[in-house]
Amino acid sequence: MATTLFQDLDTVRYEGQDSKNELAYRWYDSDKVVLGKPLHEHLRFAVAYWHSLAMNGSDPFGAPTIHRPWMNRSDAMPAAKEKADAAFELFRVLDLPFYTFHDRDIAPEADDLRGSLKNFHEIVDYLAKKMESSKTELLWGTANLFSHPRFMAGAATNPDPDVFAYSATTVKHCMDATKLLGGDNYVLWGGREGYETLLNTDVGHEMDQAGRLLSLVVEYKHAIGFKGQILIEPKPKEPTAHQYDFDTATVFGFLKKYGLENEVKVNLEANHALLAGHTFEHEIAMAGAFGILGSLDVNRGDPLLGWDTDQFPNDLWDTTLAMYHVIQAGGLGKGGMNFDAKVRRQSFEPEDLVFAHVGAVDLCAQAFLKAADLIEGKDLSKLVDERYAGWKTPEAEAMLAGKVTLADIAKASEEKNLNPQPKSGKQERLENLVARKLY
Amino acid sequence: MATTLFQDLDTVRYEGQDSKNELAYRWYDSDKVVLGKPLHEHLRFAVAYWHSLAMNGSDPFGAPTIHRPWMNRSDAMPAAKEKADAAFELFRVLDLPFYTFHDRDIAPEADDLRGSLKNFHEIVDYLAKKMESSKTELLWGTANLFSHPRFMAGAATNPDPDVFAYSATTVKHCMDATKLLGGDNYVLWGGREGYETLLNTDVGHEMDQAGRLLSLVVEYKHAIGFKGQILIEPKPKEPTAHQYDFDTATVFGFLKKYGLENEVKVNLEANHALLAGHTFEHEIAMAGAFGILGSLDVNRGDPLLGWDTDQFPNDLWDTTLAMYHVIQAGGLGKGGMNFDAKVRRQSFEPEDLVFAHVGAVDLCAQAFLKAADLIEGKDLSKLVDERYAGWKTPEAEAMLAGKVTLADIAKASEEKNLNPQPKSGKQERLENLVARKLY
Amino acid sequence: MATTLFQDLDTVRYEGQDSKNELAYRWYDSDKVVLGKPLHEHLRFAVAYWHSLAMNGSDPFGAPTIHRPWMNRSDAMPAAKEKADAAFELFRVLDLPFYTFHDRDIAPEADDLRGSLKNFHEIVDYLAKKMESSKTELLWGTANLFSHPRFMAGAATNPDPDVFAYSATTVKHCMDATKLLGGDNYVLWGGREGYETLLNTDVGHEMDQAGRLLSLVVEYKHAIGFKGQILIEPKPKEPTAHQYDFDTATVFGFLKKYGLENEVKVNLEANHALLAGHTFEHEIAMAGAFGILGSLDVNRGDPLLGWDTDQFPNDLWDTTLAMYHVIQAGGLGKGGMNFDAKVRRQSFEPEDLVFAHVGAVDLCAQAFLKAADLIEGKDLSKLVDERYAGWKTPEAEAMLAGKVTLADIAKASEEKNLNPQPKSGKQERLENLVARKLY
Amino acid sequence: MATTLFQDLDTVRYEGQDSKNELAYRWYDSDKVVLGKPLHEHLRFAVAYWHSLAMNGSDPFGAPTIHRPWMNRSDAMPAAKEKADAAFELFRVLDLPFYTFHDRDIAPEADDLRGSLKNFHEIVDYLAKKMESSKTELLWGTANLFSHPRFMAGAATNPDPDVFAYSATTVKHCMDATKLLGGDNYVLWGGREGYETLLNTDVGHEMDQAGRLLSLVVEYKHAIGFKGQILIEPKPKEPTAHQYDFDTATVFGFLKKYGLENEVKVNLEANHALLAGHTFEHEIAMAGAFGILGSLDVNRGDPLLGWDTDQFPNDLWDTTLAMYHVIQAGGLGKGGMNFDAKVRRQSFEPEDLVFAHVGAVDLCAQAFLKAADLIEGKDLSKLVDERYAGWKTPEAEAMLAGKVTLADIAKASEEKNLNPQPKSGKQERLENLVARKLY
Repeated sequence: MATTLFQDLDTVRYEGQDSKNELAYRWYDSDKVVLGKPLHEHLRFAVAYWHSLAMNGSDPFGAPTIHRPWMNRSDAMPAAKEKADAAFELFRVLDLPFYTFHDRDIAPEADDLRGSLKNFHEIVDYLAKKMESSKTELLWGTANLFSHPRFMAGAATNPDPDVFAYSATTVKHCMDATKLLGGDNYVLWGGREGYETLLNTDVGHEMDQAGRLLSLVVEYKHAIGFKGQILIEPKPKEPTAHQYDFDTATVFGFLKKYGLENEVKVNLEANHALLAGHTFEHEIAMAGAFGILGSLDVNRGDPLLGWDTDQFPNDLWDTTLAMYHVIQAGGLGKGGMNFDAKVRRQSFEPEDLVFAHVGAVDLCAQAFLKAADLIEGKDLSKLVDERYAGWKTPEAEAMLAGKVTLADIAKASEEKNLNPQPKSGKQERLENLVARKLY
Repeated sequence: MATTLFQDLDTVRYEGQDSKNELAYRWYDSDKVVLGKPLHEHLRFAVAYWHSLAMNGSDPFGAPTIHRPWMNRSDAMPAAKEKADAAFELFRVLDLPFYTFHDRDIAPEADDLRGSLKNFHEIVDYLAKKMESSKTELLWGTANLFSHPRFMAGAATNPDPDVFAYSATTVKHCMDATKLLGGDNYVLWGGREGYETLLNTDVGHEMDQAGRLLSLVVEYKHAIGFKGQILIEPKPKEPTAHQYDFDTATVFGFLKKYGLENEVKVNLEANHALLAGHTFEHEIAMAGAFGILGSLDVNRGDPLLGWDTDQFPNDLWDTTLAMYHVIQAGGLGKGGMNFDAKVRRQSFEPEDLVFAHVGAVDLCAQAFLKAADLIEGKDLSKLVDERYAGWKTPEAEAMLAGKVTLADIAKASEEKNLNPQPKSGKQERLENLVARKLY
Repeated sequence: MATTLFQDLDTVRYEGQDSKNELAYRWYDSDKVVLGKPLHEHLRFAVAYWHSLAMNGSDPFGAPTIHRPWMNRSDAMPAAKEKADAAFELFRVLDLPFYTFHDRDIAPEADDLRGSLKNFHEIVDYLAKKMESSKTELLWGTANLFSHPRFMAGAATNPDPDVFAYSATTVKHCMDATKLLGGDNYVLWGGREGYETLLNTDVGHEMDQAGRLLSLVVEYKHAIGFKGQILIEPKPKEPTAHQYDFDTATVFGFLKKYGLENEVKVNLEANHALLAGHTFEHEIAMAGAFGILGSLDVNRGDPLLGWDTDQFPNDLWDTTLAMYHVIQAGGLGKGGMNFDAKVRRQSFEPEDLVFAHVGAVDLCAQAFLKAADLIEGKDLSKLVDERYAGWKTPEAEAMLAGKVTLADIAKASEEKNLNPQPKSGKQERLENLVARKLY
Repeated sequence: MATTLFQDLDTVRYEGQDSKNELAYRWYDSDKVVLGKPLHEHLRFAVAYWHSLAMNGSDPFGAPTIHRPWMNRSDAMPAAKEKADAAFELFRVLDLPFYTFHDRDIAPEADDLRGSLKNFHEIVDYLAKKMESSKTELLWGTANLFSHPRFMAGAATNPDPDVFAYSATTVKHCMDATKLLGGDNYVLWGGREGYETLLNTDVGHEMDQAGRLLSLVVEYKHAIGFKGQILIEPKPKEPTAHQYDFDTATVFGFLKKYGLENEVKVNLEANHALLAGHTFEHEIAMAGAFGILGSLDVNRGDPLLGWDTDQFPNDLWDTTLAMYHVIQAGGLGKGGMNFDAKVRRQSFEPEDLVFAHVGAVDLCAQAFLKAADLIEGKDLSKLVDERYAGWKTPEAEAMLAGKVTLADIAKASEEKNLNPQPKSGKQERLENLVARKLY
């Protein structure tokens, strides 16, 4: 193996909050036990091959700024192996337990379908071998069904059934690979499953197409005995003008429509939540309420910019509330926290990638510890429980359980001449409680 | 009956496109037959009591500018009757077939629940009497469960079950009144069914509360033999930071969750679509695809402003596409098109209200005629049908119908070494086709 | 003096970071010296009469929820005095050095102009008397030229010159009062100085009107010997569709156009920055660069909501960066930090108002201390200075100073065959530095 | 000359409104005289080399879909000439009077500065030759100072003065070329003149750098006797998080700050206006009021998407209002209307490019004719003039001219006990007037 980009970098270690080392963890003490489990089992951090190995810093107005040794090579397969070597060095440097990939992140497209599949499986085997001597496991695999022009009008939702078949074929192989590599989840992100203009689109037909692919995936999962979770990653728009997997609530309706709500969960991303007009904690809380919280793509967007900036997270308040709702929802199970984040295009040095991850890992760890503290101290939940306490009376429970009719309720209310009085929502006081915990 | 505000205004008449009369309809020839029915049966326009009789021009930084004779009166019930008289004069002036109301639009709140219900029914009876001599019928009734401070933390979703009971009681009476007045629909808009901050909110509990109220409503509808439609009006935010009925897709998931998707439809508003990040035609197309398109609140928002401006519509392109998708979805049935729009606060003269409606009625009529023309000429649908034509082959139909597995598809695709080629989406050409039809 | 709403509340005291008292300051140690001055001289906090005494919790869909003893009284002048008594009790409870007001916050509108001015001056005299026995001084006064319907089409920019004259008259008296009460600044916020629709608007004429009023104000300031600052408060929209004082850069251009850039500064608000598409620190940094930073309205908006939510600030990151740029710009001088923030409408209890201020005061104090620490440690500035170090060479300085022509530069560059190389912007590393300082 | 992509396409001709030919103009009768000049002199349409010859359909999630014969060639200079041949064929097909380019659109970057300049001038000479036999002239030239990684942290505003010098050199040559080719304007768009994060940025220094470059450009213009206009193209954000040329008002302040307001005008783009939170007509009206309206980049954005979609315009209402304000501002002079718009990435066929331009040209022509009609009929201006009529009295004129003081105005107002009454703004009526003109 040749020298990789990250080979000279030391492994990042936990050194505690007093450390002045910019490349040490101050909060991510992976074995620290909280809420009955070590941090690494709660957080299950993953490095994203997509952003950390494959991004080149281009933007709609600018050429690549990030030039890695494996990019733009005519010998694509050796380059892919070199990239894999670098990837595992990066995993070693960051000392994180998981990674994630799209098929196209790890292996190059070939001239035809068969060639592309061959490339893919060759690299999958290479990764399998590398994993033998690495501590880093696979959180999830997925198929890139959006970059190639054949997907420009959709993958599963393409007006051309051949593109559907091509996509299905690709997904089949990506599921096989994910199983082979011991992945805990298989993800579907529908970047092109939407429309540019309704003028040329039949949304009902396209949703049925998407529903069919998802059903095929679920059936295949059982057929091959894949024990991981199937996850849909919602995003409202970008690259298309509208995507069918708009947000958690929309995906829930979609799953119900096709009878898949017990088979599929969501992989939620902070920046996608923002683009849909939601906070990250909202999406997590909703997924918790629907019973479909699967995994997280941890990053941040810029509320002043209308596109997916995919920045590394740095906001303790938002991240703590996200963690709080993850805990409230019972945790992520087989899911994890994937750093679906990229360094800025001006941050083209390998070291920038390490700075970025160190900051994000530490932020999430600190946020989780703060959230656990809020949970254990019941600071918030005590006030929330008091607020809904009225619903614990037998009359209220009966009403909520559907044991009385609208006419019954009206009769009783009129007899009592009901006159409910407002109670303060105490929002500022609750915000102070959180602030004092965090800052 | 005393002189009303609108008594001296002439009834607005259809005079054709060459009319120079600013207070005549140029496109709304109500008896003109198109797509097999007269325009008035397609469009079923309604005047909104809420906006046209009850708004006073205040905004968050400004006091009322619109002072009608029935406002701010100490003799609230005579004032409410005077308002009703004016309302029916306005309906006469505009010559439109329907109106809509909230309980609080027509009758004043009293000191207690029983008194408020008494006020309400007294005015309902007064309206019933007025309707005997009017051509204008009731499109829908609804309850205002958001203005009074008791609803500040929600109506059905209030942490206090007494507010739920109060709300249920109010809805029961509003449904009775709607049935009595021959209304075709009963609408629920959850303006406070959401949250200001997740810090004090249990979203799962609150959604169950909302689901319960809706189930009670559906059961009561059947119990009393109300033949109209039950409609939910989605809105993503404002007044709260998040509302559970975010958009059509979210409402569909909600209905599925509580098993109500065959009982309840949506009343879609253009400005609410905008606030959710959608076009109006998107919401209509989605409702059509889900089979839950019920009725429309016709208005427009301002994409540069982040609140519900509720302006009268004036965009022919957008309105034509909305009408196009209404027709594609099979029309509105018992629903209609309610002008949920208010004059600007500087437009405080009674005449401004008439100008506003004349423009909006004409725009919708013109848009409907253009949309019908697009449908009949198949200008768009021909290209769309061609685009999806591949799905008509037996193989594609089998694939979509779930008759083959993922492995089958992969095997066949690999054998064929599938290589689907992009086809132009022709968006600009389709836009030109629409532009030439409209302008 | 009768019992006021806040009379039973204890004065909030600094108790240090270990305090568990929810109504104590943990960071706001007002006499603590940092960067050479006590905190209270840096921060100059003010309580806003507008939000804290005059807001009633109404919103566009809801009636008032906040009922104070002085509201909705038929005896308006005694009520105004009772309100003033309560205000000074609140100032005493919060122990903050300043307050701010609009004329209409403190005194009721009368039936005519003369009566309104009489009311105003009577209450100003009452406030003057109260200030004799209070530690709280006046940060700024202003005129409410937006609530009354006469201003619906603008104050200075109204198409009716009588409204201009009415506005000018009101401003004259408010300036007199501000001087009398020892105010340090006079503020103009142009809530109606904009347009609803360009269809009825002559923007050039209206900007000249606004420029004229501002010139009159500046001349009058000098005429009466008012030593305070004249401030414009930018806001891009809401209540109107467009306001002429869109943001700092726009105001700077406006001041230059009318030759007032050395006479007038800006009063910047966080939520207004957000509505203009900016961060608060951006606006502060720009005002610093233009030399027009005057004062701050400290609050926060919700990036997911499109209106002025005017919430109390709670984000340490954003507030620290705001403070950082205030310090970089040389501080606020005669300006200060006004809590232009209101409790949520569900937070209707007097205590909520205190919780809100305690949290905000502490946040700002903590943020200022962190910012001072960043400044003193040069953590950020060291890297920034290095980044621009190239501009310190004589050649670069000459180029920036305009001592060479475009042709000269081209000639030299071509001779050198210049090939500048990218340098990492280190954004993630800098974010980590800030995070480690804050959390 | 080899066969070009567009060689087989017929020249698009004006055929009148009854034409069914999808590739004919129905409204753009270029010699039709309106407001005293032929349409082509008012509109001065330009084809953009950037979008129409150089775009490849890639987006942040997708590879190129548009493959033209001149793209990705190892023989870059012959390819550039072939591209020029195709460009002039496209101009011939569209029969439009102008084109526009960036240096990098027409000529490839070489290995070093000197080589790049050599390539550029060689192609400029080639274009000069082609122009001899073409009717299409140059509306403007500009330099691409944003795509190459050297500009990632800014061009004029780069922390590295060598990048400033490199940029200045490039601009010098682009100005030379523009003059040589008879261009009527020289444009500067500061796509990277902004910041990604304030943490590493000195905004004051960077604005001074930008001011310096602009001063150098103006001086050079006079030095070489270039008679065209110098134009800045505002854009608020994208690619950076903030750009210094945010919008018209910001640019006006910038010009005033550096004393360039009589030397430089703005090139306004519809989509950029939208990203800044403005309508296109707002930006045009503001530029008119500031006296800096220079030229237009005609396109449209999608208000539901937060990035520069650069779509071809299709909205008659918006475009008519834009044209209305162009006429009100006295027209564009040496400026024109550049189609800064690109076909969707699914519209990869050459024909799509023609459809797109035909629709846009016709829309603008129709809009201009409608706007001229509104102007000539004084439909709107009559009502606007009435609205401001009060300012024509001697007293009002004196007040606006600064002939009275604030104290004078107050005295007179109090004596009169002024009580101005609201007047309806008639927005809905005015909208109806426009609608009836357009639809």
